[in-house]
Amino acid sequence: MKLFTIGPTQMYETTIKVRSKQIPYFRTKDFSEMVLKTNSMLKRYINTSNNSEIIWLTASGTGGMEATIINCFNKNDKLLVIVGGNFGARFAEICKIHDIPYDILSISYGNKLTEDDFTNYYGNGYTGVIVNLHETSTGQLYDINLIKNFCKRENAYLIVDAIGTFLCDEFKMDENGIDVAIVSSQKGLCVSPGISLIFLNNKIIKNKILTNNVKSLYFDFKNYINNIHRGQTPYTPAVGIVYEIYDMLNFIENNGGISKHLEIIKKRAQYFRDLLKKNNLTYPSYPLSNALTPVIIKKPLAKEIFKELKDNFDLIVNPVGGENADYVFRVAHIGNLNFYDYNLLIEKIKNIIGMR
Amino acid sequence: MKLFTIGPTQMYETTIKVRSKQIPYFRTKDFSEMVLKTNSMLKRYINTSNNSEIIWLTASGTGGMEATIINCFNKNDKLLVIVGGNFGARFAEICKIHDIPYDILSISYGNKLTEDDFTNYYGNGYTGVIVNLHETSTGQLYDINLIKNFCKRENAYLIVDAIGTFLCDEFKMDENGIDVAIVSSQKGLCVSPGISLIFLNNKIIKNKILTNNVKSLYFDFKNYINNIHRGQTPYTPAVGIVYEIYDMLNFIENNGGISKHLEIIKKRAQYFRDLLKKNNLTYPSYPLSNALTPVIIKKPLAKEIFKELKDNFDLIVNPVGGENADYVFRVAHIGNLNFYDYNLLIEKIKNIIGMR
Repeated sequence: MKLFTIGPTQMYETTIKVRSKQIPYFRTKDFSEMVLKTNSMLKRYINTSNNSEIIWLTASGTGGMEATIINCFNKNDKLLVIVGGNFGARFAEICKIHDIPYDILSISYGNKLTEDDFTNYYGNGYTGVIVNLHETSTGQLYDINLIKNFCKRENAYLIVDAIGTFLCDEFKMDENGIDVAIVSSQKGLCVSPGISLIFLNNKIIKNKILTNNVKSLYFDFKNYINNIHRGQTPYTPAVGIVYEIYDMLNFIENNGGISKHLEIIKKRAQYFRDLLKKNNLTYPSYPLSNALTPVIIKKPLAKEIFKELKDNFDLIVNPVGGENADYVFRVAHIGNLNFYDYNLLIEKIKNIIGMR
Repeated sequence: MKLFTIGPTQMYETTIKVRSKQIPYFRTKDFSEMVLKTNSMLKRYINTSNNSEIIWLTASGTGGMEATIINCFNKNDKLLVIVGGNFGARFAEICKIHDIPYDILSISYGNKLTEDDFTNYYGNGYTGVIVNLHETSTGQLYDINLIKNFCKRENAYLIVDAIGTFLCDEFKMDENGIDVAIVSSQKGLCVSPGISLIFLNNKIIKNKILTNNVKSLYFDFKNYINNIHRGQTPYTPAVGIVYEIYDMLNFIENNGGISKHLEIIKKRAQYFRDLLKKNNLTYPSYPLSNALTPVIIKKPLAKEIFKELKDNFDLIVNPVGGENADYVFRVAHIGNLNFYDYNLLIEKIKNIIGMR
């Protein structure tokens, strides 16, 4: 079996090795020290100050997204949510449920986010902008500069869902004025799903989070902030996944560091996209994250290709939902994959299409 | 390393084996079928009808507790929360945060829950009773008959946190009029922490959950109920742990079934408690779950015993928090443990105490 999916991903051997061991008890000094070391590496990789805090939340990415919104904002705020796919729409849904006023900046499918898209939104008094920087359902990687400039001019907090881009593309949290970044264990970190990490800078902790009245026990970041300096969480975390994350960061560190890691993923993405072109297959023209490539099929065969690749060759690509489900599937460039894997995948895809 | 802790527990070899494999992609028929098979086994083991539903929530037990309360109740309800330790207190905190009216039935430390405790609470119009049937912080297993009878007489829903008792003690959900049971992956199931399972009977789904307006996306059970019949969850679950749970249930099934499994745990508990007596060590006189035994030390040495067992012998017992932290630690009887492990543990504990 080979996973070209974007979470779970094809795991590295080192992760399998960590997973093959008994999970230790976690209310110990050893565990605390590991968490603190992990935090320090994570902050370095996401390019944020040591004063930022990381919330370790045992939950899917959606849990991390919801927890972030209700900790940072309330009904006195006004948010601009950038919606260019399923995950942007999910943020809007969260704001609606929690009675947090919001507007939607909508990007039609296939279109690129440009400066013009912001024209109608200046001077509206937004206190925050919410964006899935890599809208994983379409593959588009938005231009962070556009969003950063808008936030600066409007004096709005910038909340970035970095789930599909951290450890996939370069990510500079502080330099880009990002106040909160949301990460999930199963994407760029390439380990098991189950933990969301929320990076908070000092400004938003002080000005918004510590004074906000959160109507949740499990999602209240204040409880987590109070425990993280001793390397602990208020509730039993997904302990096994904490070990996997620590190990993965060390793996990256010992194999040339973050820039080398990002370079490898970029090369894979480029290699695969070149292969697509050579084989008359198409991918979107808007800017893409290196995490994945959406493959566009002219005939409505995407679901069949997924099924045949899986059933006949044990190769798993990532389907899409919604109206493009028959015409698009996605291929990941994160995880333990190499050029040979892509050669094989393209060959099989061509065979399947050729037989139709 | 040997874990006498109650979550994570000492894992069975079969769990380690499952964990040593690549985590598969989950939006597939194979995964769905596994979830449906798992649900069917779980319902059989907890003794509930096939019409009950199971919510697969990627979260710690506390997340499962909070999600349960906000899905089943709202400000028009009135709850009685049985508080005999930390976990009962947590339920009260959740009710408070969500403005759900509640009273506390408090059990002082060391006391047994009796029929008299309910005397003052009849006729108060409670719509629900909330109890951690095994209050894991003290080890007390409450008498389900007392609680069941109270609920029946008062016509109140019965919500049971079964985290510390399911697959540890006999548990008959339907027979005992339990409307909701909350379970966590790292306790009786003996697998990795990260998933909470919430069992809902048909009555509470129909009369409370489907009509309740839950102010959360991630915790709204309606989304989960809509997906579970196709063996899926609305958001990426902790996929690896789903496989571990499926495997563990098969392991129990292939080793004599649930009654054999519970018998083994009961024998371990009995063996360990006999050992304590023989060695002039004490444990509480109130009714205990078979999941664990709290060991009471006369001198304030509990923290030192924990540390020495860990540092010198790689034996990990479970500390307690709060005012008894110096006098009590807990020893689990769930997980991959046998009589020899307890012999060794007692010997080392005696040595440590003897040297003081």
